[in-house]
Amino acid sequence: MNTQELVDQIHQKKSFLCIGLDVDLDKIPEHLLQDEDPIFSFNKQIIDATHHLAVAFKPNTAFYEAHGVTGWRALEKTIHYLNENYPEIFTIADAKRGDIGNTSSMYAKAFFEDLAFDAVTVAPYMGKDSVEPFLAFENKHTILLGLTSNKGAFDFQTKILEQEQLYKQVLKTSTTWHNSQNLMYVVGATKATYLKQIRALVPDSFLLVPGVGAQGGNLQDVCSYGINANVGLLINSSRGIIYASSGRNFAETAAKAAQDLQGQMQLILDAM
Amino acid sequence: MNTQELVDQIHQKKSFLCIGLDVDLDKIPEHLLQDEDPIFSFNKQIIDATHHLAVAFKPNTAFYEAHGVTGWRALEKTIHYLNENYPEIFTIADAKRGDIGNTSSMYAKAFFEDLAFDAVTVAPYMGKDSVEPFLAFENKHTILLGLTSNKGAFDFQTKILEQEQLYKQVLKTSTTWHNSQNLMYVVGATKATYLKQIRALVPDSFLLVPGVGAQGGNLQDVCSYGINANVGLLINSSRGIIYASSGRNFAETAAKAAQDLQGQMQLILDAM
Repeated sequence: MNTQELVDQIHQKKSFLCIGLDVDLDKIPEHLLQDEDPIFSFNKQIIDATHHLAVAFKPNTAFYEAHGVTGWRALEKTIHYLNENYPEIFTIADAKRGDIGNTSSMYAKAFFEDLAFDAVTVAPYMGKDSVEPFLAFENKHTILLGLTSNKGAFDFQTKILEQEQLYKQVLKTSTTWHNSQNLMYVVGATKATYLKQIRALVPDSFLLVPGVGAQGGNLQDVCSYGINANVGLLINSSRGIIYASSGRNFAETAAKAAQDLQGQMQLILDAM
Repeated sequence: MNTQELVDQIHQKKSFLCIGLDVDLDKIPEHLLQDEDPIFSFNKQIIDATHHLAVAFKPNTAFYEAHGVTGWRALEKTIHYLNENYPEIFTIADAKRGDIGNTSSMYAKAFFEDLAFDAVTVAPYMGKDSVEPFLAFENKHTILLGLTSNKGAFDFQTKILEQEQLYKQVLKTSTTWHNSQNLMYVVGATKATYLKQIRALVPDSFLLVPGVGAQGGNLQDVCSYGINANVGLLINSSRGIIYASSGRNFAETAAKAAQDLQGQMQLILDAM
């Protein structure tokens, strides 16, 4: 999917919501555990109930790998289900990969070709030749960890690297990489006040913003600093939506939680 | 496996060789492609032919994920085969994971419990709360990316972060984390001259050293700067061993390549 198609979808749905499919068998409704593939059953129902309210879905691979082959199969079924039934949805593998060149190419192939995700999250620590193999895929998007939402972000990311905070060096340097037009960035909602400075460095890029809801980030703050002419934001919510209820009505309740966020986004978009 | 058992194995085998199982279907002997599971067939024969020359095996997960469910099953079979037949071997999942706390716990569970690896490689960018969930597992080892072997290492890792190079900050800060005794570090063999400074920061830790051979690193240099009283080094070779031949004799040829490195290690160990 190219960026314009994503932007069009945002305006059509009046939403820039991304729903995180972080499926934990301890948290999904009990009655699903008897299904042949409880993870996929859960995802399918969440997707069917919320696809019109969200523009992106983001499975975090950790939750699938934790179940080995069974989990990996559930991930495959989920992305195939999305691609077949809702081809307009922007799909993100939240994998936070990053390795030396030839190995990064294997990861890129795995997520962009075999699984056919639109985007994958990538860690910057290993630098240019660890990220460029992902950038080589046309109409695929590499979402680089910029300033993450967790406490540990202050361990290194906000430290001064040659007169500038490390995460800013990451943003600036990454814009010089080959095919950098395929980059987006992860910026935690809990770091909303940093967004003004981030927008000075990457004014046009899309930002994937986790941390609204459970982690305490605020949608209004994120939007007031981070929105650009293309909206340029994907706000992710995982637990706040998918675990809104653990009863048989979980999918409807998830849709209500998604609708609540989408409603707030609509007000913001209408005011643009 | 605890560190002492690893050290004992090093002295017993006169080797600190780690063999990287980076299996690429384009590079393995053609006759294996007819097998039901070519990746596992290849690994099994490499392991059987070289286990007495190496103390560790390290599959890089990218090469398995590239084949989806089939690849993940081959990874499971490989680690089970190692654990059942060669329980003395130190097993490393080269996964370079790292995510926020609860998600890192899922990765730790996947690699330490479900797959029962002894160690996993982890990226430091997200800081303390992204690494500590791995450190919580007793007798399991977290190998943090320190100074990697690729060119991109110079993009950020060697830049000055608050008066000190980033990778040094990573090493120093990581020693303050809870259960830091379970840490090891990735240090590229191509960065051998940095090892003296690295040893000043982490004198007692094991270092996993990729980059000898194909990437141009030199074993003598690495040892002269990096060895400590416990040896404290695991030298990884992947392509140089497993693809030494693409004929039917690939496993024997791999053993010869492994023996060549092991022989050099024996001389170094005998001189200690």
